[in-house]
Amino acid sequence: MSDAPRFVVNCPTLATAGDTIELAHGGGGLLTQRLIDRLFRPAFAESPDDLTHDGAVFDIGGAQFAFTTDSYVVQPLFFPGGDIGTLAVNGTVNDLAMCGAEPRYLSVGMVLEEGFPVDDLRRVVVSMRDAARAAGVRLVAGDTKVVERGKGDGLYVNTSGVGLVLASSPVSPRQVRAGDAVLLSGDIGRHGIAIMAVREGLGFETTITSDCAPLAACVRALIEAGIELHCMRDLTRGGLATALIEIASAGGVAIRLDEAAIPVSAPVRGACEILGLDPLYVANEGRFVALVAPACAERAIAILRRSSGDAAVIGTVEPSARPGTVELRTLGGVRVLDMLTGDQLPRIC
Amino acid sequence: MSDAPRFVVNCPTLATAGDTIELAHGGGGLLTQRLIDRLFRPAFAESPDDLTHDGAVFDIGGAQFAFTTDSYVVQPLFFPGGDIGTLAVNGTVNDLAMCGAEPRYLSVGMVLEEGFPVDDLRRVVVSMRDAARAAGVRLVAGDTKVVERGKGDGLYVNTSGVGLVLASSPVSPRQVRAGDAVLLSGDIGRHGIAIMAVREGLGFETTITSDCAPLAACVRALIEAGIELHCMRDLTRGGLATALIEIASAGGVAIRLDEAAIPVSAPVRGACEILGLDPLYVANEGRFVALVAPACAERAIAILRRSSGDAAVIGTVEPSARPGTVELRTLGGVRVLDMLTGDQLPRIC
Repeated sequence: MSDAPRFVVNCPTLATAGDTIELAHGGGGLLTQRLIDRLFRPAFAESPDDLTHDGAVFDIGGAQFAFTTDSYVVQPLFFPGGDIGTLAVNGTVNDLAMCGAEPRYLSVGMVLEEGFPVDDLRRVVVSMRDAARAAGVRLVAGDTKVVERGKGDGLYVNTSGVGLVLASSPVSPRQVRAGDAVLLSGDIGRHGIAIMAVREGLGFETTITSDCAPLAACVRALIEAGIELHCMRDLTRGGLATALIEIASAGGVAIRLDEAAIPVSAPVRGACEILGLDPLYVANEGRFVALVAPACAERAIAILRRSSGDAAVIGTVEPSARPGTVELRTLGGVRVLDMLTGDQLPRIC
Repeated sequence: MSDAPRFVVNCPTLATAGDTIELAHGGGGLLTQRLIDRLFRPAFAESPDDLTHDGAVFDIGGAQFAFTTDSYVVQPLFFPGGDIGTLAVNGTVNDLAMCGAEPRYLSVGMVLEEGFPVDDLRRVVVSMRDAARAAGVRLVAGDTKVVERGKGDGLYVNTSGVGLVLASSPVSPRQVRAGDAVLLSGDIGRHGIAIMAVREGLGFETTITSDCAPLAACVRALIEAGIELHCMRDLTRGGLATALIEIASAGGVAIRLDEAAIPVSAPVRGACEILGLDPLYVANEGRFVALVAPACAERAIAILRRSSGDAAVIGTVEPSARPGTVELRTLGGVRVLDMLTGDQLPRIC
């Protein structure tokens, strides 16, 4: 292992705006990608395919495992549809599911700020317990640190997870093929808008609730039905657009989407208009895309619709277009989607 | 799994000083223990043995795995003998080793503060790469979040790890038996004092460097030599005293230590006198205790001395004494050791 090739860490122009970390480095868009590509991957990855996916997959003792980690810094800690605890459990459960794995065990690392109310901590712990129960995982290892007042923001949570890979063939951007159907598991944008509404004190007519939910059962159903799953990705920071651009880029394929097919609820669409946000870039916490062999698309959609009636085929992988690009066919023509460059919604998860 | 018994989360008197989190809740002593016993364990543990050890051990697909997590909030980030990066890799490697496991894969979750210098981040990343290489583990999954200025302290790191259990019989406090020898792997107190010296701007004659180091190779050697290992614990927050009290309490045994046998270097002893600290409670990051069958003690010490000439038998598990206690035989008599009650050295790891 120690003989594997390593690379020199060299990132002279990590950020466009200088030599310090900016909020947008954590936004899930272009600057996050640069941080990974120019700093983390050269140091940590042992092959170019490493760290291109939501989780690592490896063999130990004859079985295949998925392993993943996420830190959660969402603000506010409590929001309609969930809290930092549900988010931390479901987010890591979903990253494991996106590897084609059945989530089994989660760890919990908490960084608490001095003065944080114990009642709030108790609420979060109960949420984590309930979310773990709902997703069928066990919280088995934990760690707690406390930092001084003004050195944190109440509570940061890290969850890492281990799962057993169920999918019989690899699930990764490299498996995507021209002709694959791009499926979306439900309507987009609810998590990001739910957070923004609380944070900005916006009162919409309808309370928009986060879509935060575990995706593992849905993924398991797809695998058990024999759906030829090439790649999956949950739509968190950076939203649908960023997830698909990452897949197109890592897989060297071109994706074409049909805007009219992408489900956005009326309240989310209205809120996005008021806030000047593009729903394609707004975060979700219970939605994913699956790129599947075209012959399986119809059966897969039927399975996804058991969880959300809005699940839809939203595009295809194009054989002729420029690799690494995602195009959106709109009423007015075709628009090439860019990665999120700023931090549209800081600390959304 | 969802049918397993769960408990109501109820912690009316979590802290002695009220209803908010204090620094001492993260100090590794009594208040940390209360937080775990009264809040986390009732919610997360499915059996009373859960969460009593540095890591969880479980079976998947016929093999036994260890899984552990730690968040690192050490201040300053850089100190003699290491930095937050070496600490984060070695700390999690050591927690896996303490389960009798060979560490294999680590994840890295970073919470960066806006404005953190990229050069410092690069130094930490290089340290992590080098520490991983030295310990024979791979950093395979990562996550980065950024929080606003004043909501962090430069950099917090979480590492979680997965290892394959090598020990053929369980390694846990429940395995400890009367008559077991208590072995210490080397001199104590260097990590805590190294941090305090930098933090307080203390200039001692000799620069005291942290003992931060991976323990996995040493543990592997003990296992391969067939040493009957009953329990191991690395001596981090709370130091030697707290680790042994935790073992005595979880295992329902009494431990008697011989103060004269506990190795403390002259510089650390001197610094502790100046700072008013008890070396038994000062943090270490490359030291552990092993409780082994008495017949194996001599061979085990010979193996430990390949890493540190200071390794020593420091005590025994007493058949007649009061379960859950740790007594220290000193020149003047016998002193019962208490758990650390305040936070002697906040943010030491």
